[in-house]
This record gives sequence, structure tokens and C-alpha cells, in this order.
Amino acid sequence: MSTTPASTLAILNQPSRHAPASLDGAAPLRLVDPDAVHIGVRDLGITRGDGIFETIGAVSGTPQALEAHLRRFARSAAALDLPEPDLDTWRAAITAVADSLAGHREAAIKTIYTRGIEGDGRPTGWVHGFASSDFAAARRDGLRVVTLDRGYRHDVASISPWLLQGAKTLSYAVNSAALREAQRRGADDVIFVSSDGVVLEGPTSTVLLLRDGRLVTPGPGLAILDGTTQDSLFAFAAQHGIPTALELTTTEHLHSADAVWLVSSVRHAAPVTAVDGTPRASEADLTAQFNRYLAGRRD
Amino acid sequence: MSTTPASTLAILNQPSRHAPASLDGAAPLRLVDPDAVHIGVRDLGITRGDGIFETIGAVSGTPQALEAHLRRFARSAAALDLPEPDLDTWRAAITAVADSLAGHREAAIKTIYTRGIEGDGRPTGWVHGFASSDFAAARRDGLRVVTLDRGYRHDVASISPWLLQGAKTLSYAVNSAALREAQRRGADDVIFVSSDGVVLEGPTSTVLLLRDGRLVTPGPGLAILDGTTQDSLFAFAAQHGIPTALELTTTEHLHSADAVWLVSSVRHAAPVTAVDGTPRASEADLTAQFNRYLAGRRD
Repeated sequence: MSTTPASTLAILNQPSRHAPASLDGAAPLRLVDPDAVHIGVRDLGITRGDGIFETIGAVSGTPQALEAHLRRFARSAAALDLPEPDLDTWRAAITAVADSLAGHREAAIKTIYTRGIEGDGRPTGWVHGFASSDFAAARRDGLRVVTLDRGYRHDVASISPWLLQGAKTLSYAVNSAALREAQRRGADDVIFVSSDGVVLEGPTSTVLLLRDGRLVTPGPGLAILDGTTQDSLFAFAAQHGIPTALELTTTEHLHSADAVWLVSSVRHAAPVTAVDGTPRASEADLTAQFNRYLAGRRD
Repeated sequence: MSTTPASTLAILNQPSRHAPASLDGAAPLRLVDPDAVHIGVRDLGITRGDGIFETIGAVSGTPQALEAHLRRFARSAAALDLPEPDLDTWRAAITAVADSLAGHREAAIKTIYTRGIEGDGRPTGWVHGFASSDFAAARRDGLRVVTLDRGYRHDVASISPWLLQGAKTLSYAVNSAALREAQRRGADDVIFVSSDGVVLEGPTSTVLLLRDGRLVTPGPGLAILDGTTQDSLFAFAAQHGIPTALELTTTEHLHSADAVWLVSSVRHAAPVTAVDGTPRASEADLTAQFNRYLAGRRD
């Protein structure tokens, strides 16, 4: 009789073909105890938040939007001048971890890739999967959000690439601090706004709006992540004849839109029910269709 | 016969009295192998860069500016809503680690404090000391710096505390990216400038200028760290009758000042010899006095 573990951890021996392996002659993947210690105190991932990650949803053992996540992972690595990740090895690790968790209806799979021990030249990489929290309430009843100033102009990514906006880095302390600020204000989540008043993204999600019959996400040219879940929902919209657009968006649009969602790989589509304390309408039927579509993805 | 190790690692069992210990009944400090693995992959210090640090210089076993570093450590913890660090325990760990490295003329001691394993409530803390690199050349011959836009307005700390400017967090990927950008431009280090043109700080240092006979550091009210080494050099200046000031500083001042330094706890005072490719003068005698004073501190 096989049982499904609560979590699975695979350590990659050589996360990039352009850098030496961690251990000579070791297997490409080692499945190890997720609750044991595995990281040295000199790893730049912890001393400097110097690395990248992805969080991938898996349904009954199948990772979702896997190739979109891998492409974004490679773009983040390039933004940080990390050795190019060997996507075949990462894909194999993600698939193995997801497969081990097939007994869970929903799982989250994190890929983490750091610059490794300072001065050593060998990056660190692992894939950690675990049964998801239950997001049924957020998907159905929605989230109260506050808008918080991200401090950067909306176009800072093109001007100052060293600020790493648009890369999914391990330096997420600001994202965590923003979520604590939301809790202090009695809200559930955050929508970041640029210093010049342009809606950006959530700390761990992409913003979607229904405006005049179009499905809209903030863009183009913003200092934000490409949303893999937003991309899936644009495919859903195309199938259903709903026009889609990237448009510069203001906080006023967050109030006037017909619906607003925060969408992400594991929580999927959560309707926004209040912005800065002001209630706003949502579209229960469309939200349910979004979430059925997202849960049903098989690649 | 005792030998001095190259590095020493002390893990704190209970970094805060306001949070549970890591291991029931364990010793307050455990001296462990610095090169072994010690951190779990779910530690928020690595998954989110969600923690703080200090880097303290030690000379022949004596930590320098220890109380100033501990005060700043506590301020950073408060900015991140971490449980208040037990400074007595941290001080004991720093002193023990420094003492073990007394055979090295100069050592660097890092204190790292993370939120710990997600959802667990027990923070992670350690003190890692190691023999310093040789900074004689930087102290004597100086650094070529480039100015880079930090993307934030100079006063963002007072407006948007969730951006954590002024806290010394583990989310330093931008600092590392800025140093790589400096290397690409043929320079050694960076001075960050606010989006509205105000000189801020280096990625791992404080800016000092000699202007009209005064020793000046950028301020007040900026979104930067309080500099412990700058504070020591202001004490030196007071002893020698040199007036000191916090003044709003522009990149033009970096060219027109009589001298500019980047000062930090381990590298001490490094004169800036070029700004954005334009050579600038330095004050060799005063630099040498600064570095003798900094090396001679015994508390």
C-alpha cells in the first residue's frame, strides 16, 4: 500500500549545466526529508535573498502551466545573472515531486534556485512540493484588499534593471511586510500601486479586471511579473469570445470595473470584494467558471 | 596548543524571549560546524528573504561598535515585526564567536535572524564569524563608484514603511544586482541616488563627504540605514574639532566635495577616487587617520 506524503523535497545536483555540480558523481535528483536541514548559513539565498523562485500549482499530480513557469524562471535567472537553469533537470524534478503528491487533489510546488555559497560558484537548487491550503473560501467569498504604494514609478523596470522588478526573487521581505500592513488595516491582501498612481500587481498575484466587457490586466511596460495564471485566463477568454487587453490601470478603475480579481498559481481566481474599505461588486458566475477552468488545466 | 579556526558558527536556541525556543532544553548557544547544513528549505529567511542581519567588525577578538549594531538590529527587527531579539543572548553569541577568532587580526561577524519556518512561530538565529578579506588596497587606493537610481523618493521611509527602507533585511538581491552593474561599468562600488536626485548610501556602506571643512553624511530623514561606522567617525571628528553634519546631498556634491568615502564595519573607510568615470581627489592623510581610529576601537 502506498501513501501520499504531506510534502516532498528534491534537491538538484546540478541546477545549471553552466556551473559545477554540488556533489561529484551524485544523482541528478535526491529525494530527501523535507523537514531536515539542507542549507548552509553562507548560502547567498539566505544571506542576501540572492536567488529566484516559482510557485506552481499541481492538480492530482499534474503541474499546471509548467512551461510558462519554466520560461519565467529562466527570465528571472537572466535578470539576476544566475547561470542559465537546466530546464530539463528542473522539469524532471517538478514532475517527480508533483507525481509523488498525486494523492492530493491540489498541491503547491516551489522551485528555488540560489547563487549558492558565496565565492563557491555552485548554485543551489531544489523543488519542494506540499499539499495546498484550502482556498475554497477565498475563491468563492473573495478578498478585501488595500492599495499600497510600491514606491517605484510604473516604468522603473526599463530604466533601472538592477532593481529587479519583473524578476521573481527570494528578496520578498517587502511583499511580506505589505501583507502584514493589509492585516493591520483589516484587509486580506494588497494591490501595489506605482508612485505615479498606476496599478501594478499583488505581492503574490496578478490583477485582473472586467471592464466594458473586456478582461484587462495592468500593462504594458510595467515593472511587474508576467502572470502565468492571467495568461491561462486570457486563453479561457479567447475560447469564450471575451476580448482581452493590457491597459494602464488606476485605482479609480479598481472601483469602477465590473469585477476585479487577484489571480495566482495556487489560490487561482479570488474576487476582490472591497478596495481600501469600499465594497465592490463581483461576478460570481464568471469567477466560478475561471476556477473550474484553472483547476481543469492538464498542462 | 590551540589553533584559531577560519570561521565559527553559533546557533541561538531562543533568539527572542517572546517566541518559543527551537529545541526544548537545548543550550542557549550551540557551536557547530560552519560548513555543514543547518537551515530547512521552508525557513522564511530563504523563501522570502524575511529576516534581518548585521555585519560587525572584530579586531583581535573584540567586536567593534557592538552596542550600536545591537541597537540597529533591534530597530530592524521592529520594522519587520519580528519578535524582539533578546540582545543579551545575541551579545553573548557575538562575544563568544569573536573571542574564538581572536587569533585573526580582523574578522567579520554576521548576525542573522529570520522569521523561521513558515507557520511555526519559532524564529531562527545564528552568529557566523570568519577571518576578513584583506581590505588594505581599498582603504589606501580607494574605489571607483557609479551612481545608480534606487528608484525610491528620498523620503519614502516616512511615507511607506512597508518598503522597509532603513531596515537591514535579508532581501538584498537589489544590492547585489547593483554591485554587478558597477562591475559591468568598470567600477568597484555603487552610491545609490533617490529617484528625486538625493544621494542615499552604498549597497553595503554609508557615504561620507568632506565639504568646506565639515564631515557630512547624507540626511536627515532619508530612507537609508543609520551608519554605525559613520557614527564612529563623527566621534573621531568631534575629538579633532572637525564639525559634522547631516545634509541633503546631490551627485554634484560627490564631485565638488574635498573628499568622499564609503565607510562600513569591516572594510572601514575607503576613499572614492572616481564617480561615474570622473576622477576625484581624496585626502590620504585623513583617510589613514580614519582607518587607524576605526581599527583601534575597543568597544
